[in-house]
Amino acid sequence: MTQATLDILGIGNAIVDVLSRADDSFLAERGLNKGGMALIDAEQAEALYKAMGPGVESSGGSVANSCAVAAGLGARVGFLGKVANDGLGEVFGHDIRAAGVHFPTAPLLGGAPTARCLILVSPDAQRTMNTFLGACVTFGEDDVDPAEVARAQVIYLEGYLYDPPAAQAAFRAAASAAHAAGRKVALSLSDAFCVGRHRAAFRAFVREETDILFANEAELLSLYETEDFAAAVAQVRTEVAIAALTRSEKGSMIVAGDATYEVAAVPTQVVDTTGAGDAYAAGFLAAHTKGLSLAEAGRWGSVCAAEVISHFGARPQADMKALVGG
Amino acid sequence: MTQATLDILGIGNAIVDVLSRADDSFLAERGLNKGGMALIDAEQAEALYKAMGPGVESSGGSVANSCAVAAGLGARVGFLGKVANDGLGEVFGHDIRAAGVHFPTAPLLGGAPTARCLILVSPDAQRTMNTFLGACVTFGEDDVDPAEVARAQVIYLEGYLYDPPAAQAAFRAAASAAHAAGRKVALSLSDAFCVGRHRAAFRAFVREETDILFANEAELLSLYETEDFAAAVAQVRTEVAIAALTRSEKGSMIVAGDATYEVAAVPTQVVDTTGAGDAYAAGFLAAHTKGLSLAEAGRWGSVCAAEVISHFGARPQADMKALVGG
Repeated sequence: MTQATLDILGIGNAIVDVLSRADDSFLAERGLNKGGMALIDAEQAEALYKAMGPGVESSGGSVANSCAVAAGLGARVGFLGKVANDGLGEVFGHDIRAAGVHFPTAPLLGGAPTARCLILVSPDAQRTMNTFLGACVTFGEDDVDPAEVARAQVIYLEGYLYDPPAAQAAFRAAASAAHAAGRKVALSLSDAFCVGRHRAAFRAFVREETDILFANEAELLSLYETEDFAAAVAQVRTEVAIAALTRSEKGSMIVAGDATYEVAAVPTQVVDTTGAGDAYAAGFLAAHTKGLSLAEAGRWGSVCAAEVISHFGARPQADMKALVGG
Repeated sequence: MTQATLDILGIGNAIVDVLSRADDSFLAERGLNKGGMALIDAEQAEALYKAMGPGVESSGGSVANSCAVAAGLGARVGFLGKVANDGLGEVFGHDIRAAGVHFPTAPLLGGAPTARCLILVSPDAQRTMNTFLGACVTFGEDDVDPAEVARAQVIYLEGYLYDPPAAQAAFRAAASAAHAAGRKVALSLSDAFCVGRHRAAFRAFVREETDILFANEAELLSLYETEDFAAAVAQVRTEVAIAALTRSEKGSMIVAGDATYEVAAVPTQVVDTTGAGDAYAAGFLAAHTKGLSLAEAGRWGSVCAAEVISHFGARPQADMKALVGG
């Protein structure tokens, strides 16, 4: 096995976020499921945007957010994902490269526009996401360069990639290429409803291909169709080498074989929870690929999540290296 | 004189801001003048964007920011300004309308793109602005509908409109139409360097057409080419009915005839000073057109400025009515 020249290669949807504040009645009137992620088409996106309040645009995408945070922590990071050759695509490409992430995927020419996620932030800081996948639906196996995969210690995949049909093949291909090269595969379950839409595929992928799993409580319970967290933890322990389970203000639990580590959340003034899980995974993977302990990886995750939820938007605004004391 | 159906009609450059953090060495290496606004062309904008860190996009423009804040305070507000028929133009139009502002100006078809301002925020929260005017340079007299002007209690103009050449005629035409309809004209000096570029025109416009003047210390000193603030205050007192002079953490001074009101700043954690003056003017004009006292108008200004500098970006994030206790 050759020396890795990247610590983390993220593969995910390349999305620009449009964040706006909205109260609970706005969500209720439109049947939007608070705290979740819904897929919408171009027409729905236009109608919702028209009804929304003033917005702030910021590059997003779950794994792309993680990549930006991990690069800020000093990890060597790459990202594969599909934008269009348009204004928002330029914004996405600028932002991820400016964060220090290697981003080789060619933009889509003359098709759907760059994906956007209309994010409604509630007064209690919860976010409700409405994603128009746009150009992301064309991301496929051809966009996964096995040479890029083979040079990263860990590839990191988002469960959201199960939604665009072509990306599912890319997902499997990337995992096979990583394992063939002796590398590790990390997966985020992304969203409880996304797990519900693709449960059988997720169950198989977790068992067969996942070395490091990220999930929050709702996602883990959805995966195993149980309401018993302890039972779900017992099951995930037998299926993956490492599972990092996030529990909002209760912190996180890391299970690895017989070992269990409880990690406290870092207290902060919560402004917007968008990107909390992404930032946790970034901190965890940056520490883990640096060779730090699982408990320390959990601490880095908590520190990163606290930074991202303390302001509007999913990308970090502070000096992340200084925050983790690295 | 008919009853006004708008409280404030703003006329200004229609700009989308791209905010990014940058340290002093980044500014120094590029000869950027910290705290100021520089005009850049399309090529310079591309080069600077490439060198900048990850950005956050948010609708901007000095008077447009004021309009959004004033509408949030319950004032009836309109805005005239030129965007292009492109993605950023759509963002600008969405955001100002979603803020509750009437925005009738037709977008430019097939010319320059929507204006953008690349804003570098320093670790000490100061902002350095680099503006590519794009479609704004085509805003002219034809875009100033006298009927819109005549229906507003106050029209509010930004000094920055002296930069795009066609806008200067629009500026004069709007003031004449307002006074012909018995309305008031408010002006922001915008920027000390902008005042320096167009000093003679500013001096004449302040004397001949301005009822309410907004300026910070540096702008006022530049207008009268003096280093003596007291002397500048004495002069402005003779030239305009009301001058609201902002002094950062020292608060503001309002002079009106023989009267002088000192207004304290509202203490806050300063994150980004972008839009502080715009928000102050919004608070002041919203209170003034509501018939409140000058001292109370100053207090509204201070409250609004404090909200806007407490977070990244120039548009408000809080419930402004609640903040002023209105």
